[in-house]
Amino acid sequence: MKILVINCGSSSLKYQLIEMNTEEVMCQGLVERIGLADSVLTHKNPIGKKYVVNGKFTNHKEAINIVLETLLDKKYGVIQDINEIYAVGHRVVHGGEKYSNSVLIDDEVLCHLEECIKLAPIHNPPNITGIKACKELMPNTPMIAVFDTAFHQTMPQEAYIYPIEYSLYEKYGIRKYGFHGTSHKYVSQKLGEVLNRDIKDMKIISCHLGNGASICAIKDGKSIDTSMGFTPLAGIAMGTRCGNIDPSISTFLIEECGYTPEEASDSLNKKSGVLGISGVSSDFRDLEKSALEGNRRAKLALDIFYYRIRGQIAAYAAHMGGVDAIIFTAGIGENSSITRKSCLEGMDFLGIKIDDKWNDVRGEIVEISTEDSQVKVFVIPTNEELMIANETLEVLNNI
Amino acid sequence: MKILVINCGSSSLKYQLIEMNTEEVMCQGLVERIGLADSVLTHKNPIGKKYVVNGKFTNHKEAINIVLETLLDKKYGVIQDINEIYAVGHRVVHGGEKYSNSVLIDDEVLCHLEECIKLAPIHNPPNITGIKACKELMPNTPMIAVFDTAFHQTMPQEAYIYPIEYSLYEKYGIRKYGFHGTSHKYVSQKLGEVLNRDIKDMKIISCHLGNGASICAIKDGKSIDTSMGFTPLAGIAMGTRCGNIDPSISTFLIEECGYTPEEASDSLNKKSGVLGISGVSSDFRDLEKSALEGNRRAKLALDIFYYRIRGQIAAYAAHMGGVDAIIFTAGIGENSSITRKSCLEGMDFLGIKIDDKWNDVRGEIVEISTEDSQVKVFVIPTNEELMIANETLEVLNNI
Repeated sequence: MKILVINCGSSSLKYQLIEMNTEEVMCQGLVERIGLADSVLTHKNPIGKKYVVNGKFTNHKEAINIVLETLLDKKYGVIQDINEIYAVGHRVVHGGEKYSNSVLIDDEVLCHLEECIKLAPIHNPPNITGIKACKELMPNTPMIAVFDTAFHQTMPQEAYIYPIEYSLYEKYGIRKYGFHGTSHKYVSQKLGEVLNRDIKDMKIISCHLGNGASICAIKDGKSIDTSMGFTPLAGIAMGTRCGNIDPSISTFLIEECGYTPEEASDSLNKKSGVLGISGVSSDFRDLEKSALEGNRRAKLALDIFYYRIRGQIAAYAAHMGGVDAIIFTAGIGENSSITRKSCLEGMDFLGIKIDDKWNDVRGEIVEISTEDSQVKVFVIPTNEELMIANETLEVLNNI
Repeated sequence: MKILVINCGSSSLKYQLIEMNTEEVMCQGLVERIGLADSVLTHKNPIGKKYVVNGKFTNHKEAINIVLETLLDKKYGVIQDINEIYAVGHRVVHGGEKYSNSVLIDDEVLCHLEECIKLAPIHNPPNITGIKACKELMPNTPMIAVFDTAFHQTMPQEAYIYPIEYSLYEKYGIRKYGFHGTSHKYVSQKLGEVLNRDIKDMKIISCHLGNGASICAIKDGKSIDTSMGFTPLAGIAMGTRCGNIDPSISTFLIEECGYTPEEASDSLNKKSGVLGISGVSSDFRDLEKSALEGNRRAKLALDIFYYRIRGQIAAYAAHMGGVDAIIFTAGIGENSSITRKSCLEGMDFLGIKIDDKWNDVRGEIVEISTEDSQVKVFVIPTNEELMIANETLEVLNNI
């Protein structure tokens, strides 16, 4: 049983075809520069062979069409018939308050997704475009929406309501939604498998540290708080996003520094974070190198990144009345041993101790805490595509 | 030796005359509605007798003049000669990065204070006006500036630099300054006295919970982090201020909800916090009553207030590698036993246990933790005026 996973950005489209019986990735690829003259599809089959198609893919429908053609290609493809695709799982960034689970897409759902555009004006429109294009090309294949926000719909009110005029929540939906839910859910479930233990009686803190980064407090298998907020700008410091700062800075930029509201948003989303502090890069490999070479601001950027993660982890321990396990995942979390070590420095008072020997690992499931650590610390590579495929299957099985 | 303490607001002025040998308040008072037709001075002498002067005090100079006349009044006054006032201690909100201690005010200092107006456009101008008025009326009396920000100048960079474009710090001074420093310093020193212990080897978390509220991590006697930020809008939820929220909310209000930047600032500063959530009041006595009567949003406002304090306390424990003592102070911290209890609920994992019997206290120094609590918890009433007077004397003694 094969499931196609689609993740549409504004001018790009990622896909994976997954054989669910074995959880094997049959092929995966990326279409870039959709709508531009020099669009390109890069397709990889399971043995890693690359296939590149250059062309002009005017819109997402054309892009998906070329993806399907590639899947069926005699030489590089992996299926003979489009009907071999049992279902399509679509990553959708924002499901608002409506969706606490993945959902079979019908006209009513599409309508709700369009209502959510105001909450995610950058992310939801290409997600919707991708869904519509797929529906046109594969009218008989079920489509499932899997939301970044759904896992966090279990947060209690004291976590998701902001201390602002309550009418802003009622009228505009301004509240904490949280993101990266698919990833936090995946790694916490994976932890349960690895420990052979039901996570329904565990207190887990999941640190998804990529270019976008968020931390999630998972109690009894449910998200009870997460660091991203109304938008993915909030929380810990990120590659180029500021995370939590004095909210008056946004208005100060406009009132005192001559920024337009758009320029202020642009600065806080794209020129801030570790890039903004360091002036060097948003890539942690560059920053670690630069800091080692003596660059003071690169070191400061990393120190601030670690500092804020430490504070967030402790806060979530408080919100759960303790912590049993901490997970590091995503690009930085899976690959940077120095990040993991630095984020947990001085946390012995919470019973957290990591072993440098075990921590010397990249991208595989490893327990990196010492034997006598009260809190288990794990590296668990995330797999949002597999999670989307699993959810897709689950929705169809429950209909 | 008598010291006059002055705290000027935009249309008000608070004062105390303190006899330093005994730390006794000789008299205190408040001038309100300065600049309006119906100004009023309310003066209290040590036995609590009230003296009211109605009139029109056009500006701060006239207000200070009437204060001095009252101090000298045959019936209600407490001194015979203006020269009995050894020095004047002025509360100044913002000292920028320049002042990490209190300072004797000369022309150069006044000049720096004026430079700090851009950082505290509401608070610093009346502080400066008050200083100038006092200098004119008492030209031979030394004037000392005691800053709300000074105590926090010991914060390390990873605490005070925001993850935003570094040039915004260099060009506009956008960084965390922190406030309530005089109060945090006072109660932490008082804790040392009470325990008869040098706080230079302690990890203390001070919770100043008034209508404005902030939490401070004090390690080895020094502030290493605090919850207010570039402005007093940041940090935990407050009476009418939002504290930390997704910074994109500020721009969303402007771009999507039709607020002007001024209206957005006004909403986040004056209509948010527990008032914004509850729609009931910013006064915790009203909220506690209303919540008891079943008002759902009043209860939610309180729950969010407690929730965010809990998270902040745990984060500061992480930043200090543990915590030895927690102090509650200011209006709510000193008087609301339910706030103290609720803020520390579920914090047993940090070794924090409070005793309901001891916690049943208002406005006096009491240790409210249980005997077996690993973390000592205290109620310590703040006394910013006495601290300002002490600092004033210390500056003069060190010249």
